[in-house]
Amino acid sequence: MGDKRKTRIVYPSSEKVYVSGEINKIKVGMRRIKLTDTITIDSRGEEIRKKNNPVIVYDTSGPFSDSQVAVENGKGIPRFREEWYSRRKDIIRLDSLSSVYRVKPGKNLTQMYYAKRRVITPEMEYAAIRENQQIEDLGLKSYITPDFVRKEIAAGRAVIPSNINHPEAEPMIIGQKFLVKINTLINNPLPPYTMKEEVGKIAWCCKWGSDTLMDLSTGKNRHESRERLIRNSPVPFGTVPLYQALDKAGGNIEALSWDIYRNTIVEQAGQGVDIFTIHAAILREHMDTAFPRLNGIVSHGGSIMSKWMQIHKKENFLYTHFAEICEIVKAYDVIISIGDSLRPGAVYDANDAAQMAELRVMGKLINIAWKQFVQVMTESSGHLPMNKILDNVKERQYTCHNAPLYSYGPMTTDTACGYEYIASAIGAAQIAWQGTSLICCATPDRHSIIAHKIAAHAADLAKGHPGAQVRDNALSKARFESRRKDAQNLSFDPEQAAKYL
Amino acid sequence: MGDKRKTRIVYPSSEKVYVSGEINKIKVGMRRIKLTDTITIDSRGEEIRKKNNPVIVYDTSGPFSDSQVAVENGKGIPRFREEWYSRRKDIIRLDSLSSVYRVKPGKNLTQMYYAKRRVITPEMEYAAIRENQQIEDLGLKSYITPDFVRKEIAAGRAVIPSNINHPEAEPMIIGQKFLVKINTLINNPLPPYTMKEEVGKIAWCCKWGSDTLMDLSTGKNRHESRERLIRNSPVPFGTVPLYQALDKAGGNIEALSWDIYRNTIVEQAGQGVDIFTIHAAILREHMDTAFPRLNGIVSHGGSIMSKWMQIHKKENFLYTHFAEICEIVKAYDVIISIGDSLRPGAVYDANDAAQMAELRVMGKLINIAWKQFVQVMTESSGHLPMNKILDNVKERQYTCHNAPLYSYGPMTTDTACGYEYIASAIGAAQIAWQGTSLICCATPDRHSIIAHKIAAHAADLAKGHPGAQVRDNALSKARFESRRKDAQNLSFDPEQAAKYL
Repeated sequence: MGDKRKTRIVYPSSEKVYVSGEINKIKVGMRRIKLTDTITIDSRGEEIRKKNNPVIVYDTSGPFSDSQVAVENGKGIPRFREEWYSRRKDIIRLDSLSSVYRVKPGKNLTQMYYAKRRVITPEMEYAAIRENQQIEDLGLKSYITPDFVRKEIAAGRAVIPSNINHPEAEPMIIGQKFLVKINTLINNPLPPYTMKEEVGKIAWCCKWGSDTLMDLSTGKNRHESRERLIRNSPVPFGTVPLYQALDKAGGNIEALSWDIYRNTIVEQAGQGVDIFTIHAAILREHMDTAFPRLNGIVSHGGSIMSKWMQIHKKENFLYTHFAEICEIVKAYDVIISIGDSLRPGAVYDANDAAQMAELRVMGKLINIAWKQFVQVMTESSGHLPMNKILDNVKERQYTCHNAPLYSYGPMTTDTACGYEYIASAIGAAQIAWQGTSLICCATPDRHSIIAHKIAAHAADLAKGHPGAQVRDNALSKARFESRRKDAQNLSFDPEQAAKYL
Repeated sequence: MGDKRKTRIVYPSSEKVYVSGEINKIKVGMRRIKLTDTITIDSRGEEIRKKNNPVIVYDTSGPFSDSQVAVENGKGIPRFREEWYSRRKDIIRLDSLSSVYRVKPGKNLTQMYYAKRRVITPEMEYAAIRENQQIEDLGLKSYITPDFVRKEIAAGRAVIPSNINHPEAEPMIIGQKFLVKINTLINNPLPPYTMKEEVGKIAWCCKWGSDTLMDLSTGKNRHESRERLIRNSPVPFGTVPLYQALDKAGGNIEALSWDIYRNTIVEQAGQGVDIFTIHAAILREHMDTAFPRLNGIVSHGGSIMSKWMQIHKKENFLYTHFAEICEIVKAYDVIISIGDSLRPGAVYDANDAAQMAELRVMGKLINIAWKQFVQVMTESSGHLPMNKILDNVKERQYTCHNAPLYSYGPMTTDTACGYEYIASAIGAAQIAWQGTSLICCATPDRHSIIAHKIAAHAADLAKGHPGAQVRDNALSKARFESRRKDAQNLSFDPEQAAKYL
């Protein structure tokens, strides 16, 4: 390790600013976009200059955009949250072979546990501060207070992914009452980037606004590759541990077992994975319900588990061992995202009996997780025509006790091959407006990330998230006053905007 | 004129088929996509082949995709509708200088006139046949009968753009109960195409699915350029005559007059323009209502007319002469699309008093047009957050007596600079689902046209348009059975799909 090249993210006319916490000793990074003056000419032909306030926006770029922090490739980004641990009495470090943090015996350290104990953790305050985008400009008082965050976490309506072994990640909140977030899927092989290094891949996604990353890679050297990715990720990092477990079973579904799986999640939790997608809600009895489908089971994890159940004639081991899984992950505060094995792969299959049956199991699993104060969210979507989106969200909210919803898509038509990001952005904007907290960008492609950023922001506007419109107003004012550079700099992709504005 | 190069559109595994009318002597072009067989292996290891029905889809490519028709560049495409005129007693040809068709004195020839007289014209039957996409496959009987089309036209809820001087254009219907259509704006200079000729520009837009084209070009040689475009356009062609009128006034708004404008619409109607956007609904009294706006007046036509009113201290001449405009355009059956001078240019301005005031004037103008059986639709949208889309549509439908709505966007956020087509596709899909009949693709860029095609199709699915889902089902079945080529060919852009499927 150790490579003198540095990875930097530079946004035009922007600077990194830090806002300090009031309850905890924290400083929260944000991006301040400076604007030029409005210039008008008065009746005597003289120039009148009027200042335009800078606009502070949510920032996912972490230390990469801080000129004071040198991120040397290979060395990892600063483990800034580790500093907070010194004040904690719930964490121990396994200093035998690894340097893995875990919970002290007899303790619970999840955000949900503390939220229910009425403790405002640094993570909660950090997430709260990020949500408030200079809403004073609109004459409003910030309503996203640290205690509001705490209440939402306590109720299970929001989660803060923050594995104690990923202290490089900035806390952020996923929940219906907060800004809509974007998860970007990164697989191997990744597409070619302008920044070619491993750390560059992460920086690339964070630059365009990815709030979380999910690594769906399979194959060799997963541990090492994942290590490099996590050590450089300023945003929470997720995986589907089943994929690595299957790799460990030699790719043979029959050989897959609870033992292999358990070892895999212990390994990954120790590395710092913040979110585990777990396909625990598909049961043997669901197999029949998927038969009348046009497209059967399209979820990768779902088809692995359904084959496993067919071969072994046993119930899904992720379901039968779900309480043990919770027992393991809570030692690190890993979030469980319950995978949607039966999401529809065609609009024909949308909101069908199979999907609804799995939903009801998700509801049960959520109660099991919450008993142990494990933070949990649920996945779904797939292909859904627009007229079924609201029903889908309402049903999921009801069945899953208002746990945060993560949506893959929905694709609003099956015909968008090669343009999936368009059909997905159309559906994601609506489902996020209706109540989904996290939307998914299926490829780390720049246009796709920005498309989903636009969808998320459109949803924030429609939800009336306080402060969301500050950026739109500033940009529209800049356009109206022909301050082209300002309008470009306020856009999600200033370089692209410069070509058209 | 006369250029031996031929312009052809070829869709993979597709053939042009014609469906005959039952009431009128017409044949309606459609595209049939052939599919390969489904192959399964039985228990004895033998191959079982099962035929997949071809899928017939709506076709905007006109004669360009008919291998039997040679379109020589410069000569124009066949004037196939002219044949129908021989049976008509309402048309005369001015054979003095031009060869312009117009109504016989004392007659009315608009589609609305005939619809109210209970006559099913060839145009109505043609449009009806196009709407039905082999819905027998779904076990449904076609409900879009020629008489259903007639009733919708008679009620003013739908329009068929079909200027008698544009007999090259295939009749198509714009209305809430029909397939959502896409209008593509073509301006000079046009972006570079692979097909470089003038006719190629039209073919390009029609290839990707543009249902109508609107030429917003300004400057020299407009008449000649427009002539070449219309003579090669198999889809209805629209303009904003005000732009050419201003050119004729030397670009000087003060010099603009009703006389110049009247001459311009007579000229363009004689050439075969099917749709006139007319900014007749902005009045002097509206000027004040636009003052509190963040972005004032962003419509080009609207700002021309508002400046004209300021300079002359007179009411908008398009408003005061609206009945005369109707008198002129009905002689050719040109559709009036009432321009939205006060559409919001920022989400901050959405659904504001200015916009609503203009809407009420639109409602009055529609009644004036309908008295003369002039077909009419109304424009709107601009920037609208998602939560204001439904209100917007409901208000427009109510105020404008359910005349068809044409939407420009809406942009669901102001921040999508450089990615306008994404923010627009997100908004267009929803507004079309809620009731807009025609959505707008602001540039003839391939990705943008396909994005709006996806939006329109997603709306058709959500509206439950019978037959819309046939294509999705066939594509999903092909994907499920790993018939990759079939899935590609069923996609809106087979070439792009081939890169990802």
